[in-house]
Amino acid sequence: MEPVKLGLLGLGTVGCGTVNMLHRAGVEIERRAGRPIVVSRAAARDLSKPRDCDTSGIALTDKPMEIIEDPEIEVIVELIGGYDDAYELVMAALRNGKHVITANKAMIAKYGNEIFAEAEKQGVTVAFEAAVAGGIPIIKAIRESLVGNHIQWFAGIVNGTANYILTQMRDEGRDFQEALDEAQRLGYAEADPTFDVEGIDAAHKLTILAAISFGIPLQFDRVYTEGISNIGREDIQYAEELGYSIKHLAIGQISEEGIELRVHPTLVPHRRLMANVGGVMNAVMVYGDAVGRTMYYGAGAGAEPTASAVMGDILDVVRSLGAKAVHRVPYLGFQLNQLSDAPVLPMEAIETAYYLRMEVSDSPGVMAAVTQILAELNISIEALLQKVPEPDQDTVPIIMLTHRIRERQMNEALHRMGQLEAVRGKITRIRLEYFDD
Amino acid sequence: MEPVKLGLLGLGTVGCGTVNMLHRAGVEIERRAGRPIVVSRAAARDLSKPRDCDTSGIALTDKPMEIIEDPEIEVIVELIGGYDDAYELVMAALRNGKHVITANKAMIAKYGNEIFAEAEKQGVTVAFEAAVAGGIPIIKAIRESLVGNHIQWFAGIVNGTANYILTQMRDEGRDFQEALDEAQRLGYAEADPTFDVEGIDAAHKLTILAAISFGIPLQFDRVYTEGISNIGREDIQYAEELGYSIKHLAIGQISEEGIELRVHPTLVPHRRLMANVGGVMNAVMVYGDAVGRTMYYGAGAGAEPTASAVMGDILDVVRSLGAKAVHRVPYLGFQLNQLSDAPVLPMEAIETAYYLRMEVSDSPGVMAAVTQILAELNISIEALLQKVPEPDQDTVPIIMLTHRIRERQMNEALHRMGQLEAVRGKITRIRLEYFDD
Repeated sequence: MEPVKLGLLGLGTVGCGTVNMLHRAGVEIERRAGRPIVVSRAAARDLSKPRDCDTSGIALTDKPMEIIEDPEIEVIVELIGGYDDAYELVMAALRNGKHVITANKAMIAKYGNEIFAEAEKQGVTVAFEAAVAGGIPIIKAIRESLVGNHIQWFAGIVNGTANYILTQMRDEGRDFQEALDEAQRLGYAEADPTFDVEGIDAAHKLTILAAISFGIPLQFDRVYTEGISNIGREDIQYAEELGYSIKHLAIGQISEEGIELRVHPTLVPHRRLMANVGGVMNAVMVYGDAVGRTMYYGAGAGAEPTASAVMGDILDVVRSLGAKAVHRVPYLGFQLNQLSDAPVLPMEAIETAYYLRMEVSDSPGVMAAVTQILAELNISIEALLQKVPEPDQDTVPIIMLTHRIRERQMNEALHRMGQLEAVRGKITRIRLEYFDD
Repeated sequence: MEPVKLGLLGLGTVGCGTVNMLHRAGVEIERRAGRPIVVSRAAARDLSKPRDCDTSGIALTDKPMEIIEDPEIEVIVELIGGYDDAYELVMAALRNGKHVITANKAMIAKYGNEIFAEAEKQGVTVAFEAAVAGGIPIIKAIRESLVGNHIQWFAGIVNGTANYILTQMRDEGRDFQEALDEAQRLGYAEADPTFDVEGIDAAHKLTILAAISFGIPLQFDRVYTEGISNIGREDIQYAEELGYSIKHLAIGQISEEGIELRVHPTLVPHRRLMANVGGVMNAVMVYGDAVGRTMYYGAGAGAEPTASAVMGDILDVVRSLGAKAVHRVPYLGFQLNQLSDAPVLPMEAIETAYYLRMEVSDSPGVMAAVTQILAELNISIEALLQKVPEPDQDTVPIIMLTHRIRERQMNEALHRMGQLEAVRGKITRIRLEYFDD
């Protein structure tokens, strides 16, 4: 049979990973697809740059629109990343009737609704497995396998950089900046690490996971996003002492009241699988009403794991060439006109447990004042650590874990405790999830 | 749109789970599929039996052939289990041009090659996600997502009963029989537990996983199968002491020499995720050359988790109704005429590490004689435990871990050590895998 010709936009890490994979596994891929698949054209900004892949046999250009307008090419693989340029190219590809495969979480999270609407209008598909958790087939699992479930919640470690930093802080006793420096030295963090350490990348992925889990439109601007740059070495240590690891989680949850979309550092009990996902690895736990807890673990980034996800999409799309749209999986698992308008809840409305750390003056009555405030707000204390003061310090740290309460109550408690004269500086608040229900 | 009418064979646990799920999630499933899906007819052996599901609206019969011959029904869901009756019915359904969905691992492992050949001839599909690891979408992950990888090995805890027994033995200090009794009391083990505890069920699942991972035919009769009934409480304790858990694993591995297919108890280092999969839960770790290690975790049995997997298949099959065969995923991931004839290796040829436990007479020179045999066969010792003799005992247990060697060498070593006068009784040998490569 005639080979399927792919047009590749972007020859960076993932683009080259995909080219290499097609070279290496081409025979098996043909044994699977029943026909050869080749990259016939590729676009890169700077054609003179040396590459990590063999581009012989591929017609290169620095004008992506030439590929998008090539009638021989039915499938465009967008691997340039970023928001706006990628969006313009993808929309142009769709308008030209091309199927699109992308690894671009930022673009899907921000412009996915427009992209899917245009794709539906043109009768083509958009596949984006590589956009969430790299090589872990989490999109397919949720969108195609868990379809008989009401998915009630999911929680994911979906940013390897942040997970690496937290793991280093725990295992090596480093502080945030030291761990970040190490991550940058090893190439796990970029020169500007904001997207990774402030949770923006995780929020992109959460946006996508929530859409396919709950059958809602992409709502990136509704995600509560808190990074890990304020996590102190001492918080990691106190959490460990109390039997918890601190993980940076992307959490989606649905109830009758609405939907929670939140990215924040989270204490997780040591015995949970999620607490044992270390280094740059990713994992997503999904709770369905029928299946219960399922978990998916693997490499969340890197040329080869991401190319692995892209290749899964390539085979799916190639297999569907020539079939009617009705035979394809809908973009978000649900028919586009069947998405739910369930409201996204404000953070004040969520319910969770909390870790609190505060410095208080080492004087009588302080603990009574603090616990009195909690009692008035009906907040029960699950565990409490009072440390001895350091020499030459007139303050002492208090660490508490609370039971589950509304965030609104916790905000009020933090406000009142902050006004106590004995409480010095800012109170650290980290959320805590048990995942046992 | 007209509803899709399913014909259900079997109204036991999983059959009723599926009926219940369609009632509960019918609205969402229609939002996904774009059309309603209903069970219109169902067959059960004894129609007078009370059921765990509401069968109103379903035409019941005790003659499954009536459903198979019904021209209104395009999709048959086979949930009766067992080898031969199910096989006859499935073949009849295929010959009648029906698509088939099944949760029947025994049937697929034993008759899959014939079933897929007939299905291909008839141009219909056979879906079997529920046959391996219940609610975990492991078939889809390997068959559709990891397609750009050469899968080098996988290792799975795929039988919840055996995992429950081993977990009980470890956590509660029970012996095998006590833990089995407990499993039977809780309904986790059947009255005749042979399939679960002797590894036959795991071997069925391994057969299927190996076929889709390595692109080979189903070869159930080539699987080496060893159960857990000979694992002693003391082995669990010694393993723990040395930093390992004993798990009952289904392992597939491919190398240039050939394919390993083996089910046996296995020591796994405590820090590995696999060692932390407890109770009745299942997990499969898959190693692909591009993606590295990925793991899939969830409930491996039960009405609802299994129905969850069946429902994923139902949506896939419904979506493909009216499409050509070329648009469907091949039964084993590869085109049937493209399967590999790579040989299955005999156990003698595998390479692994070992745990050995033997009772030896408490006299000088015994350790020297044992270690001399190992040295002659070039077997290095990784760890050694010699326990003090129990009061009134003239023997003492020796526990050893070896480095990785060929099983052939280990067999020779066991033979020679068994001939030493100082060695009393049978030497316990349990394989050990690190999963760090």
